[in-house]
Amino acid sequence: MKLSEYSKAELSAFLDEQQTLLSEYKSRGMKLDMSRGKPSTEQLDLSNEMLTHCLDGDHFSESGIDCRNYGVLDGIYEAKRLFMEMIGVGRWEIIIGGNSSLQMMYDVLAKAMLLGVKDSPKPWCKCEKVKWLCPCPGYDRHFAICEAFGIEMIPVPMLSDGPDMDMVEKLVSEDEAIKGIWCVPRYANPTGVVYSDKVVTRFANLKPAASDFRIFWDDAYCVHDLTDERANILNILDECKHAGNPDMVIIFASTSKISFPGGGVAIIGASEENINFMKAQMAFQTIGYDKLNQLRHAKFFGSYEGILRHMKKHREIIKPKFDAVLEALDREIAPLEIAEWSKPKGGYFISFDGPDGTAKRVVALCKEAGVTLTGAGAAFPYGKDPRDRNIRIAPTYPSLEELKQAIEIFCVAVKAATAEKLLEG
Amino acid sequence: MKLSEYSKAELSAFLDEQQTLLSEYKSRGMKLDMSRGKPSTEQLDLSNEMLTHCLDGDHFSESGIDCRNYGVLDGIYEAKRLFMEMIGVGRWEIIIGGNSSLQMMYDVLAKAMLLGVKDSPKPWCKCEKVKWLCPCPGYDRHFAICEAFGIEMIPVPMLSDGPDMDMVEKLVSEDEAIKGIWCVPRYANPTGVVYSDKVVTRFANLKPAASDFRIFWDDAYCVHDLTDERANILNILDECKHAGNPDMVIIFASTSKISFPGGGVAIIGASEENINFMKAQMAFQTIGYDKLNQLRHAKFFGSYEGILRHMKKHREIIKPKFDAVLEALDREIAPLEIAEWSKPKGGYFISFDGPDGTAKRVVALCKEAGVTLTGAGAAFPYGKDPRDRNIRIAPTYPSLEELKQAIEIFCVAVKAATAEKLLEG
Repeated sequence: MKLSEYSKAELSAFLDEQQTLLSEYKSRGMKLDMSRGKPSTEQLDLSNEMLTHCLDGDHFSESGIDCRNYGVLDGIYEAKRLFMEMIGVGRWEIIIGGNSSLQMMYDVLAKAMLLGVKDSPKPWCKCEKVKWLCPCPGYDRHFAICEAFGIEMIPVPMLSDGPDMDMVEKLVSEDEAIKGIWCVPRYANPTGVVYSDKVVTRFANLKPAASDFRIFWDDAYCVHDLTDERANILNILDECKHAGNPDMVIIFASTSKISFPGGGVAIIGASEENINFMKAQMAFQTIGYDKLNQLRHAKFFGSYEGILRHMKKHREIIKPKFDAVLEALDREIAPLEIAEWSKPKGGYFISFDGPDGTAKRVVALCKEAGVTLTGAGAAFPYGKDPRDRNIRIAPTYPSLEELKQAIEIFCVAVKAATAEKLLEG
Repeated sequence: MKLSEYSKAELSAFLDEQQTLLSEYKSRGMKLDMSRGKPSTEQLDLSNEMLTHCLDGDHFSESGIDCRNYGVLDGIYEAKRLFMEMIGVGRWEIIIGGNSSLQMMYDVLAKAMLLGVKDSPKPWCKCEKVKWLCPCPGYDRHFAICEAFGIEMIPVPMLSDGPDMDMVEKLVSEDEAIKGIWCVPRYANPTGVVYSDKVVTRFANLKPAASDFRIFWDDAYCVHDLTDERANILNILDECKHAGNPDMVIIFASTSKISFPGGGVAIIGASEENINFMKAQMAFQTIGYDKLNQLRHAKFFGSYEGILRHMKKHREIIKPKFDAVLEALDREIAPLEIAEWSKPKGGYFISFDGPDGTAKRVVALCKEAGVTLTGAGAAFPYGKDPRDRNIRIAPTYPSLEELKQAIEIFCVAVKAATAEKLLEG
């Protein structure tokens, strides 16, 4: 029965029931965490060999570079080869960086502000205003970078096949203060949305008012499938070249959720001219990134196919966790018809939309009962969900047993918060 | 006999002799490199164990953090402990970063430009002009960062015990556009100068017109002694605190020339308030640096004493190289009384001052004969040595045999260029 059809008395009884359960959970003093998209210990164990025998007595690249010494600003070739196919670029269109793609995004944006990107009429910090499009729900750390730099964020609704492109096209063509957009094209954080071919081509064919507009294409989950149907999105760089906009996109990726978060390598892909421009800027910043770690990755994975094989092992570990969350939601919440949620085919999150005005309350109730969730509103610019309904669920880190407990508590919290809301109204 | 006392005929004969030698070298088709301060293969081999068995089955920090996963923005404690004594700061006064101290300097300066440092009235990019003091000869990559950001560089002469402090005090107290100064306080690049106690205390007691003036204290060679007399300079952070200027200094260091260049860890030291301010800025940029590499370093070196023991092994390898260069200069150049050079007790360089107007010519002659030197003028802002006399010699990378050949050629080139100059005049 739908919760909206409950009588007031039934609702009160229902709420009492949930509150009793919550008090019980609370008394158990549990500490469960569904807040961040972190791999579990079991997943990290998959790459342990990389830490030990990978470089035994051999620290030279194929071309004879001693990876222990200075040099090679843009990364060793075998690391490039490993990731070129993964992000769909050629050998002159890639930079292998440090341990964090987030840091590379921050850096590219910081340099855009201070120095400008290729073809910038002037550094962005000299513009009166810089604005950025933010499809949401989206990734909180993307939005935080804009906030740090005082870039005005414009929310764009996320539809089932990507951002609302009517709105994107209209805004970028009209306002030259809009310098870019955040995109997670595959298994988007947190919605799991995979951009359709139509959306990708519309991106590639944008006619921005700003001559130095950039699409920040964060392909963070490019090999993070949860099913056998691999999400083969259109190649954005190819599409941009074809549309005469070769320099409009910068692709980012990393092995944070392939090998080790914080101990992996980050990757930038773009047109050769963009890459050369970025390398020229980077040459002032560093002599080079950690080639030993690049070599570790190249030796451990061997090839792009090696990465895909490795990701199947990740999937075997995390798929049951996604299933456990989705089963609980189907069983506990679906019959009440009070919420919707994503059923992702990849990535790291489930995006949950409850009734308007309940998300903060659900997060607070969960916290009291021992379950940490990502803060309500985190997936929106400035942390403000206008409808206070979205919650990001991250199922990967806890053990399956802990996760089952956590999602049970989550469902009770959703029921309680919804009943409270209905009784108020 | 002094070269200046040669008759014109003697000089011509002398020059002919050198030119004959240079032609001979040229015909041998050698490729020798004294251009960059790179450790040699033998030095890198000292740390090979770090690449293999260091993390065998144990990737947890002392406090139980799994270094394979996200988190710990400012670095694991055992890495902090390792470097606190090295750079002379306490546990709340240190950040362990990525693989490059140069990148951390660039980043701190980039954020100063975009966001400001602690107590900045406004971001530096909003100032009409930003100026920076550059003791020279100095480190080319320091100066390049200023150049990248359009910061006006003011050269300050390097004296035998540090920068000309009369000039530094006068300039910083008078001009609020001057926001900072580059310092390499120990075995300075390239002069080998060690700052005297007097110089360090004068730095700590500066009264800058700019309220957010910063000393960038790049202690790159803090444990890179070439003799038993360790250069124990005064602790700049202690002195700054004592003088009531606790936030004026930011210390940088790295293990690039301790473990692996590009595969080491970088370190920032500063007052606790400065560190907290920087951490708050960094939180937007990254989730954390590579803790696995931090753990490798902590396990491999064990303690600060372990680092000092390790550096003795480096010294055994590179001291004979410095000696070979100095012996050749003493033998070949000293009797002619045409040049001066540093006799460093540590660091990576010998700074050579030939007759005015000869440095570029010497570098060119060497190049023709197969010896690559750092470009003449590199040690000065904008690459411009006003007297065109300074050359930076980097003896560490070539083998001893190669180095002996290279310095032989260098001496002949110096003789030739000087004779040419004298014949012109």
